Amino acid sequence: MLQSKDLYPSRQGREETQLPRWDPVVYSNTDAPTGPLSSQQLRDYERDGFLILPDFLNHHVEPILRDMPRLKQSLRGREELVLEPDSDELRTIFNPVGFSEAVASCFRDDKVLDIVEQLLGSAVYHMQSRINIKPPLKGRAFNWHSDFETWHVEDGMPRMRALTAWIMLTDNHQHNGPLYVIPGSHKDYISCSGLTEADNYKTSLRQQTLGVPGTEIMKFVLQDRDIRPITGRPGTLVIHECNLLHASPDNLSGDARSIAMCVYNSVENVPQAPFSGLEPRPEFLSAREVRPLRPASPKAA
Amino acid sequence: MLQSKDLYPSRQGREETQLPRWDPVVYSNTDAPTGPLSSQQLRDYERDGFLILPDFLNHHVEPILRDMPRLKQSLRGREELVLEPDSDELRTIFNPVGFSEAVASCFRDDKVLDIVEQLLGSAVYHMQSRINIKPPLKGRAFNWHSDFETWHVEDGMPRMRALTAWIMLTDNHQHNGPLYVIPGSHKDYISCSGLTEADNYKTSLRQQTLGVPGTEIMKFVLQDRDIRPITGRPGTLVIHECNLLHASPDNLSGDARSIAMCVYNSVENVPQAPFSGLEPRPEFLSAREVRPLRPASPKAA
Repeated sequence: MLQSKDLYPSRQGREETQLPRWDPVVYSNTDAPTGPLSSQQLRDYERDGFLILPDFLNHHVEPILRDMPRLKQSLRGREELVLEPDSDELRTIFNPVGFSEAVASCFRDDKVLDIVEQLLGSAVYHMQSRINIKPPLKGRAFNWHSDFETWHVEDGMPRMRALTAWIMLTDNHQHNGPLYVIPGSHKDYISCSGLTEADNYKTSLRQQTLGVPGTEIMKFVLQDRDIRPITGRPGTLVIHECNLLHASPDNLSGDARSIAMCVYNSVENVPQAPFSGLEPRPEFLSAREVRPLRPASPKAA
Repeated sequence: MLQSKDLYPSRQGREETQLPRWDPVVYSNTDAPTGPLSSQQLRDYERDGFLILPDFLNHHVEPILRDMPRLKQSLRGREELVLEPDSDELRTIFNPVGFSEAVASCFRDDKVLDIVEQLLGSAVYHMQSRINIKPPLKGRAFNWHSDFETWHVEDGMPRMRALTAWIMLTDNHQHNGPLYVIPGSHKDYISCSGLTEADNYKTSLRQQTLGVPGTEIMKFVLQDRDIRPITGRPGTLVIHECNLLHASPDNLSGDARSIAMCVYNSVENVPQAPFSGLEPRPEFLSAREVRPLRPASPKAA
């Protein structure tokens, strides 16, 4: 596999530090929109690193929920199912796009693709998909991190030209462990300390310890930035930029919190050899074959 | 030690269940107040199980904060210092009232005692005191529980006639791990499953596993009750009833969250032999000598 110069070095024995972001956030014209998002929405995304679109995918909620029991049953015992760190409750189902027509049709919906292609300025492919479940009173927190850091180090994603689009399947409210984001944090890159070991993913999916910025640098980041919980009703679409710092608190409520997520990468951001020097993670965590979901619309060019 | 009939049985191999509360919440006249709290405040406390009084103890904040480094230093290596479950950060200092004049004078302040005696309808004594510190980004969550359950089972407190008064030493905001309460939950008693072992406190202070209601009963409790975060500025006084269910999320922010707490018990609620049948916990966790802080004011009778 090819490998270009590492613009976003991390781990491999380095000291933790903040590095510049070399890539744009919005890859299409902000002033003359080429897709469904307005100039204002594009500017909000550019500044904050995320967008919330309520009542956007309501018609996909029921079909996905209806397919979940079958999905759990049919994947029993496989690596695609990940359990909570301190109980045996189901936490994540990976690659539902590969196993569920309901999930696949949601993340191939033109309404979603139009937006994703507009933001990334090219045709895109599904790099990863997952369903996250936070069971009532048991769903555990996860620490602040940037997805891009892991995708770069462990999967060889070279540049920041990817995003996660996700749909709320239940109410996401203040107390059932919603996603927390730090608006604007996607504008810098945090190079983490630590050393990646082979098959790190086997433990990191339950509890991530590498690629997690330490206390001192997070205090620095939070000095002049806020924490924003992302809440909403089932059917809400959220898009967050690949380098946005996010975390999630415990679910202390009696309500489950479920979402389905899909990572879209630009077909021009072809995965290289992982920058850790190790083998790439398995296909269900990071697809390496770049198959555009549809030809790029001329508008998105 | 004497022991009366166990009105609030818990653990000792029982099935988890909800039992009635046999005791009043407010022990003085609600309609004709005998102290500083108004009828409305007494009714709020009766209904919700807590009261928040902003800007009430501002003059105590600085002296306590100033004394903390000395306190940490002088207690090094003693049982009174408790660390976080997954790091060596300081989590709790027990019995600061015994070691710090600044803390003692706060919790002997007539402004506080007038309120506490009004609610409990008698003279009171300090059963326990503590300083809780949630370090930025590291302070960990704790699960829903009633303090009374532990005090009853492990310390022999017979009836619900106690409360915790606490002062905010830093801002307590949405994201630095504030106290969460379930208003109204003090009106029922949750009898927990599990079996108390000798010296349980040696582990439970870092991470409580006994006296913690399970998922099913908590889902039931939360079906028609809300979760309320208690937030405020330094100097805010909070009073919460001994049987109110409370929890706390992780501190995901860059700000420490510190509070000083004191448990007041009525001198008429004399500790008995622990209902677990084991030895009582040590004095720094639960004072057994009932020494009124001052003679009950005639108004509070």
